[in-house]
Amino acid sequence: MSRSPSIGIVGATGAVGVEVIHCLEQRHFALSSLRLFASPRSAGKTLSYAGRPLTIEALDDKSLAGIDIAIFSAGGATSRTYAPPAAKAGTIVIDNSSAFRMDPQVPLVVPEINPEAMFRHHGIIANPNCVTIIAAVPLWPLHQVNPIQRIVMTSYQSASGAGAAAMAELEASTRAYLAGEAYTPKVLPHPYAFNLFSHNAKVDPVSLYNEEETKVMQEMRKIFALPQLRVAATCVRVPVLRAHSIALNVEFERPMTAVQARALLAATPGVKVVDDAARNYFPMPIDASGQDDVLAGRIRSDLSDPSGRSLALFVCGDQLLKGAALNAVQIAEALMARRG
Amino acid sequence: MSRSPSIGIVGATGAVGVEVIHCLEQRHFALSSLRLFASPRSAGKTLSYAGRPLTIEALDDKSLAGIDIAIFSAGGATSRTYAPPAAKAGTIVIDNSSAFRMDPQVPLVVPEINPEAMFRHHGIIANPNCVTIIAAVPLWPLHQVNPIQRIVMTSYQSASGAGAAAMAELEASTRAYLAGEAYTPKVLPHPYAFNLFSHNAKVDPVSLYNEEETKVMQEMRKIFALPQLRVAATCVRVPVLRAHSIALNVEFERPMTAVQARALLAATPGVKVVDDAARNYFPMPIDASGQDDVLAGRIRSDLSDPSGRSLALFVCGDQLLKGAALNAVQIAEALMARRG
Repeated sequence: MSRSPSIGIVGATGAVGVEVIHCLEQRHFALSSLRLFASPRSAGKTLSYAGRPLTIEALDDKSLAGIDIAIFSAGGATSRTYAPPAAKAGTIVIDNSSAFRMDPQVPLVVPEINPEAMFRHHGIIANPNCVTIIAAVPLWPLHQVNPIQRIVMTSYQSASGAGAAAMAELEASTRAYLAGEAYTPKVLPHPYAFNLFSHNAKVDPVSLYNEEETKVMQEMRKIFALPQLRVAATCVRVPVLRAHSIALNVEFERPMTAVQARALLAATPGVKVVDDAARNYFPMPIDASGQDDVLAGRIRSDLSDPSGRSLALFVCGDQLLKGAALNAVQIAEALMARRG
Repeated sequence: MSRSPSIGIVGATGAVGVEVIHCLEQRHFALSSLRLFASPRSAGKTLSYAGRPLTIEALDDKSLAGIDIAIFSAGGATSRTYAPPAAKAGTIVIDNSSAFRMDPQVPLVVPEINPEAMFRHHGIIANPNCVTIIAAVPLWPLHQVNPIQRIVMTSYQSASGAGAAAMAELEASTRAYLAGEAYTPKVLPHPYAFNLFSHNAKVDPVSLYNEEETKVMQEMRKIFALPQLRVAATCVRVPVLRAHSIALNVEFERPMTAVQARALLAATPGVKVVDDAARNYFPMPIDASGQDDVLAGRIRSDLSDPSGRSLALFVCGDQLLKGAALNAVQIAEALMARRG
């Protein structure tokens, strides 16, 4: 694969798929061909890439023949059906679903954190959950100088994490609320207009954690290669259109000051420190939306730990970009840089 | 004061003041007279109480003469100006502002928690911050059987906490967003439509905690009579109209299971357990709005503490009711019950 690769996008019409196309365009990804796949009902429609219309194809079990890198963002069921045979036939699959993330044979990669892991793939490389990525990117540089012992994370997750239909439902239900009209939720299980609710993923009846929380906790351990990391997540859906926010309370091995942490984060590629106490200006979803960097602010001592070993911070990242599409494209770029 | 008291409401036209009137009505508070006070621009308008129109009076330094109990909800400046002279003249002031909460001479009261404290007043009784009350009510019964050592609290605060004008701004700015029109925030410092931001209270340049967070941490210690309680708060404003939500991670002296905590909360007056994992149904602001009880759910082990001594939970309460007006009226009721 020393030539430019042929790329396929599976789930090209979804909220993440559309952003994968944009990322490839904007980053001038050197590709020899691009093919777009989606469900049969989208087949025949076109999407634009670099000024050219590309016709969407229905995905079947022959679709990916000859494609070097396929980026999957069409849900776990599609990934489980089509990714293993494609990988066996020689395509490298970068999978944005949760289907293979915890498979010990499958690297789970954030290029800023564990780039080497991707080269140990067996045809499938998993892209982490969006909350995992957005929390992991700013925590990693701190962990490098002072090992993390414990993380309590509390999320504020936007509609975009549940896809384009959920974003449309947030807008439509809010419009109905403001007009004094009734609205029956179709995509999400609870009313969304000016409301929030515990993340809609299934709740495990034993642990009582929902699948989103379980993913985030397991994936943090895998990406950081800390199988014993003590971590608890609370995942909540808020009526924000795009970009996830996360409050983090983090305990380190040794004391760490806010000043130290801020300096480390200011020097970290992929992170932008937004921490202006005088102007009360901190990370916000509207600022993170459409932006590659994860925003980090409210960096301060966690006053519930008098040892000085704990910090609190608030981070915000575009779920569709660094939380999904951008990270996948960065993995593809790193693969090509190594092979090129 | 064995007769029914004369009651005054200062700030009667505000979001909390209106709810104080409703609470007095709905709870059939035995009062001999009710007078409503607000700023001069509201004077002369009327509000209804028990089917009768009451004319709003401009507050001046003679207004409260002869009033037995005055409930203040007009901000710290009004309380600082008018509450001390009123108290000196014999009125009992129940103050909803933060002006006197940390004054050692002023009891800070949640009737379910520290009712005895109110009888040690010197004319002023402080009503705690809304986040404090909503977190404290469900934590107190747990603390009674297993002392709390540490609390990490992360809030999702609604527009109502910033008053009626902020609620109107959330609606107006969202309407503008949906119409594709520009909107310049007037009440809150940041765009609010489908966005969230760190609480708008001033940030202390040394601690880097904002005043809302500092209040919550200090008030929890005072109400629980635990001056050394280890507590950290992160306060965030979310685009919800009414009712605050709080994610709580709580460490106890000894292990506590979710089952134990749920049973304790189910038996606690003022708390309603909403914790249906099978239906993914947990506390939500739209359910808490207009409701006296604090809703508590997502009760589960905090997996970041392998000792089993920590629980995570998610609570939701009406900021205007139990978080403000209802708590103040409950204080007045308890005062009268003791005196009656």
